[in-house]
Parts: sequence; structure tokens; C-alpha cells
Amino acid sequence: MNNPLKTIRERKPLIHHITNWVTIYDSANMTRAFGALPVMAHAPEECAEMTGISSALVLNIGTLTSEIIDSMLLSAATANEKKIPVVLDAVGVGATKFRDEMAAKILNSVHVDIIKGNYSEIAKLAGENAETKGVEATTISADPEKIAKEFAKSSSAVVVMTGKEDIISDGERVFVVRNGHELMGSIVGTGCMVASVIGAFAAINPDYCEASRDALCYFGIAGELAAVKSSGPGSFKVNLYDEVFNLSDEKARNMMNFEEKQAQK
Amino acid sequence: MNNPLKTIRERKPLIHHITNWVTIYDSANMTRAFGALPVMAHAPEECAEMTGISSALVLNIGTLTSEIIDSMLLSAATANEKKIPVVLDAVGVGATKFRDEMAAKILNSVHVDIIKGNYSEIAKLAGENAETKGVEATTISADPEKIAKEFAKSSSAVVVMTGKEDIISDGERVFVVRNGHELMGSIVGTGCMVASVIGAFAAINPDYCEASRDALCYFGIAGELAAVKSSGPGSFKVNLYDEVFNLSDEKARNMMNFEEKQAQK
Amino acid sequence: MNNPLKTIRERKPLIHHITNWVTIYDSANMTRAFGALPVMAHAPEECAEMTGISSALVLNIGTLTSEIIDSMLLSAATANEKKIPVVLDAVGVGATKFRDEMAAKILNSVHVDIIKGNYSEIAKLAGENAETKGVEATTISADPEKIAKEFAKSSSAVVVMTGKEDIISDGERVFVVRNGHELMGSIVGTGCMVASVIGAFAAINPDYCEASRDALCYFGIAGELAAVKSSGPGSFKVNLYDEVFNLSDEKARNMMNFEEKQAQK
Repeated sequence: MNNPLKTIRERKPLIHHITNWVTIYDSANMTRAFGALPVMAHAPEECAEMTGISSALVLNIGTLTSEIIDSMLLSAATANEKKIPVVLDAVGVGATKFRDEMAAKILNSVHVDIIKGNYSEIAKLAGENAETKGVEATTISADPEKIAKEFAKSSSAVVVMTGKEDIISDGERVFVVRNGHELMGSIVGTGCMVASVIGAFAAINPDYCEASRDALCYFGIAGELAAVKSSGPGSFKVNLYDEVFNLSDEKARNMMNFEEKQAQK
Repeated sequence: MNNPLKTIRERKPLIHHITNWVTIYDSANMTRAFGALPVMAHAPEECAEMTGISSALVLNIGTLTSEIIDSMLLSAATANEKKIPVVLDAVGVGATKFRDEMAAKILNSVHVDIIKGNYSEIAKLAGENAETKGVEATTISADPEKIAKEFAKSSSAVVVMTGKEDIISDGERVFVVRNGHELMGSIVGTGCMVASVIGAFAAINPDYCEASRDALCYFGIAGELAAVKSSGPGSFKVNLYDEVFNLSDEKARNMMNFEEKQAQK
Repeated sequence: MNNPLKTIRERKPLIHHITNWVTIYDSANMTRAFGALPVMAHAPEECAEMTGISSALVLNIGTLTSEIIDSMLLSAATANEKKIPVVLDAVGVGATKFRDEMAAKILNSVHVDIIKGNYSEIAKLAGENAETKGVEATTISADPEKIAKEFAKSSSAVVVMTGKEDIISDGERVFVVRNGHELMGSIVGTGCMVASVIGAFAAINPDYCEASRDALCYFGIAGELAAVKSSGPGSFKVNLYDEVFNLSDEKARNMMNFEEKQAQK
């Protein structure tokens, strides 16, 4: 897709989130800064109906409860039925049994189109031996590109592993994205924002692998532009919003930094 | 009332919120920036008692659940009994049946003094044929001034419709407020902040129609002052808080931009 | 302990929070700015397990419910068993009976290592006649140093009373901290952030009285440095994060402003 940002700003897709209470404001605000419309609704009485009028569903288990998981399942079922893309941000998988079980419950009960997490979260979901320190990635022994590709194949989803390099695969293609800046790790919530941005790009591009790649590139580019003006996490976050707001497809095109790996037979 | 901002800062009224989880921090912080004291408490065991020591109650259904609605009813009943002004921000009415029903339940069970929403939310509440895209207004066919005035009359409340122009009516008077700046729409939560500001002004001015008008003017003026210094939503929000903090009645008086419409017989 | 900030940044302790929905993002972000890792998890199915992999537990009753209190008790029991420091921020005690009862329930059911609150919250907890205006301190009649010291003794905890001067006591030592700036009171959540910072310092320093003193000094120093660059609460908060991020033990050592009171026999 040629001008994803322009398309988002023209279509203003509604992005329904059922997410955590820590970064819920930033998920909403970053969605808006990219030009999409956020809506947050988790009550079981309305969540499926809200999904039904939306163009993407973003699920984030950062502060999950069993009730929230039930609402996620209701919304995801509607999304599946209406072919609305479902993004799952597997925050903290590998830290507690409950998170592992609830993430598995979601993946076994509904179809998730894009599964996102840091290296250890995705490794754990993919059945590797991995632990997560709260919501922070730990070092994993296995090859992340291999994990992403194989897990994408077995789950029929696009898999997005975020880290110093971001790995994206649909089971065939593998993209390695190198945009971004280390200051992005100095603030809480950039990972959650990324899930929202992926939701916005997937809402207007049916090629979810490309949409995820573009989302990570564009968000990373805004981070790079913001970082050079910032003296710490406070000013960085302010500048990040301004740079996203002032980003254009033209500007982004010149700064996209990704590699498509040859498919291994 | 002559110097509402000075009065808020002298009296420091406590503004009790039962609100949504997306913008709860900004509702609290904007209340504080205007000089009032925010408190958030939603547990059924304490919410009515907290309302009882407050000077205004702000209800916002942005991320409602049936339990939260029950707490709202408990608090509003106490507010009614003690003549504490109740503000309802009807976020997302017109998007799902549940929101429509819960908003109606509040309006039918307790007295709301000030009903606030965007054009499509208020139109829907007033019985018009209107839909809301998540929490975003859609175009309505009916005349907003007429809706505000008639709905104010039928509900015995002050009605506040926010949009490019804000319409305020108590069923007799109609104010059209033209302060504000389009950058206010680039961040999530300005609508929720407005409800908090209305709560603060209503806490010190028993003329709720005038209090709502002043709240919208003052908040819009801070937005105008912030916008000229800002290069996007990140810096805008920072500047908005600084401008509110440094606002005075004198400065605001010179910039208030509203019109009082002649009452039609 | 000589270089607490350096130690936090090297060890990156995980700080588990069960906290309120208003300032949860700032508690997480301030923890991160100091170099520790925040995690928020309140589901009863996982909270104790999350505590078990953490280095400190921070409990904050700002928007408590009875379910949240149950999760706090589960987590605190694990913390006690594993000798992980427990910080309780007694937000709003003195405002409603429910808060008073729930705070007492926590203190009677588990061991809290550090009890933090503003003057009226701690006075109320200590059995004095005190009221809190929502979550804001009111003037108390009793001597705060005496209250802190005696309550520390009777509760076998470090007691931290925050205000214009911060009082810290373990029942023997009494520290009076004079770092900080009045702009810190212009934003919501500095009190909650302080509890997180105390958690981070206590995670790496078993002398919780010294850890609390250092936390208050360092956070106050960042506030002082931020204030001189700021023109209101918006810019102050941005600068506060930047200053914390750029703080060093060397810089802090030169600016620490506290007094150790002689133990009275």
C-alpha cells in the first residue's frame, strides 16, 4: 500500500481497544495522533457491539483479569465474524502462569490476526523455554527470526517480535525493522502504543504483514526524529507525539529502515 | 459571577469524579490546574460518602460497567439530597445500546444538573435519530440550538453541546461559545477535561448555565493561548496545562467569545 | 548506602504495584525513570506470583475496591514470606470510613514495612483526630515528628509523612527532609510517584529508613531542578522526568537537604 498514513487520516478508522489501565491513555492518544479514532470499551454488555462498528480490535493483557479476558473473547468473536483484524499484545506472558494460560485461551478460542510481544513473550507463546521479568523481555536462546516464522505458520497469524530489531513474519516473509531509538525504551507504554499503531495500519491494509512492518517503521521514525530534540523521557514523549502528528508518507518513505529476508526453503 | 477563577482558587472546592479509565488522570490534573481539588472514588462502600464532602459530582460513562453505573447512582442520590451539582458527560451515547440505556437510567433515576456531550451524543439523548462513531460526534441533521434548548427544558437541566461551536442552554437562555482551537481535538480527553472544569465552576456558582458558559470560555481561551506556542498534540497538551495554571479572570475577560441568543417565543 | 541511584540502575529491581487508576501510568513511568522496572498486576490469580518475582511491593489505595484490597493482601502475604519490602501509600485515609477500615485491615493482616501518607492521612492512621479533604491533607493539631516516631514504634514500620517538610522515622531515628518545590503540588500524582520511588530505593537498601529518606531527597531534588525551568504544571512534569533521568548520585549528594533529629529519651 502506497500512502498508508494518508489513508488512515482520510478514512479515520475506529480502533476498538480492550487494554490495560497503565497505558490506556497513551494507546488512545497515539491512535489519534496517527489520525485514527480510538475507542475503549470493555463492558460485556457492549464490547462486541463496539467491535462491530470498528475497523480493528486491539487486545492487550497488561493488567488482565478473568472478566476482561471474557470481554476480549466476546469482542474477538465478533471481529472474526466480521473480518475485522484482531491484534493481541501479549504483555507479560512468561511472567506468571495466569498470563500464559489466558493468552493461550485467547489464541485457542478465537483467531488472532497479529500476535505482538517482545522477544521473551513471543518465545514463551511459541512454546520455547522463556521467562519475562514482569513485562520486560529477558534474553532468549533461540533464533528470533526462526521463532517468528514458525510461530506465524503454526498460528496462521502475523507475528511481531519487538526489540532492538523488530522481527515480523507471516510464516513466509520475514521483515527485520531497524527504525527506532533507545529513548523509546525509557518511557513506559511504547510497546502498547505500537499495538495501537499496528491496529490503525491493519485497519486500512489487508496485508497485515506489510501493515505491521509499516506501523513499526513509521512509529520508529517518529521516535528517531523525536530523540534528537529530547533531553530525557519527559521531553521525548512530548516530541514523539508532535513528530507522529507531523509525519507524512513522503518523510517516512525516505527514512524506512527494514530488510526483507529471503524465504528459506 | 465576577471572578470565578479567583473564587475557585480561594475556595478549592472538592470535585468528586466517577469517570473513565482512559482520561481519569487528565480529569484530575485539569481540575487541579484550575485550582480545585479532584478526588476519584468509585467503590460502592464509599462513593456516596465521598460525594457528601464534595462540592460537585462529575459522572463520565466513557468506560462504563454496570457496577460503575450503580456507584454513580449512589453518589448522585447523595448529591441531589445535599444540593451538590451533578454533571453527566454522556461519552459514547449513540454508539451502543448499553450506553444509551445506562445514560437513560441515570437521567431517569436521579437529577442531573448539567448534561454534557458532543452534538451526536446530546442529539441521541434528546431522542433524535443520531449515531456516534465510538466516542466521536457524527453530523446531525437537526438544529443544535433547538435541541439544546428543548432538551434542557424537558430535562430541567443545563445542556452543554460541545463542538466547533459550543451550545449551552437552560431551556430559556442559549449561549454559543466560540472560544477554543482545533488542536484541542488532536488530543484525547479535552471533552472529559471540560466536564471537570464545568464541575469546578458549578461548585462555586449556583447559576449552572453561566458556570458552564464560563468554564467553556476559560478552557477554550487556555487552548487558544497554548495553540500558538505548540507544534503538535504533545507540546499542545503541555502548554494547555501551563496556560490554565497562569490564567486569570482579567486575562480571560478580554478573550471571552460568546453570544447570547434571544429567547424565541 | 553510598550510590543508591547507581545501584538501582545496575540491578533494575522489579517493583510490583497494586495501585490506583488515576496515577498508575505515572507510578510506572517514574519507577522506570529512576532505573527500576515497574510491573502492575492486580488479578487475584496472579498477583502473589508477580510479587514473588519482584524486589518491592507498592500498595496504593487511591481508588480502592474490596476486590483490590483482597489482591493486596495476597501479594503482601507473599512479600512478607519472601522478605520483600512492602510500601503502603494510605491515599485518602481520613476521608471515608471505608478507607480507614481498609487501611486498618491491611495493617492488621500483613506486615507493612513502610507506611506513607500526607500529614492528615498518617495522623488518622496513628489514631489521631484528623480528617482528609478527599486526598488532600488538612491541618493537624498534633506534632508530626512525634506522630511519625510513635506510630513507627507501634507499627514496627518506617513511617513517611509527606508535606512541606517530609518526616521519616523508624521509631528511633527521625529525618526531616526539606528538598522539593511547591510546583510538585501543582500536579496530581507526585505523592503516588514518591511511593514508587521509595519502593525502588527500598528494593536495593535493607535500611528502609535511609532508603525512604534518600528517595524523598532525590525526588525532591529532581523537582527543584525541574521547577527552575518550568512555567506551569505542564512543563514542570516534562522537566521532572528529564531531571530524574539525568540525575546522578554525585549531583544529588550536593543538593540533599535533610536533618537527623536527636533521639529523645
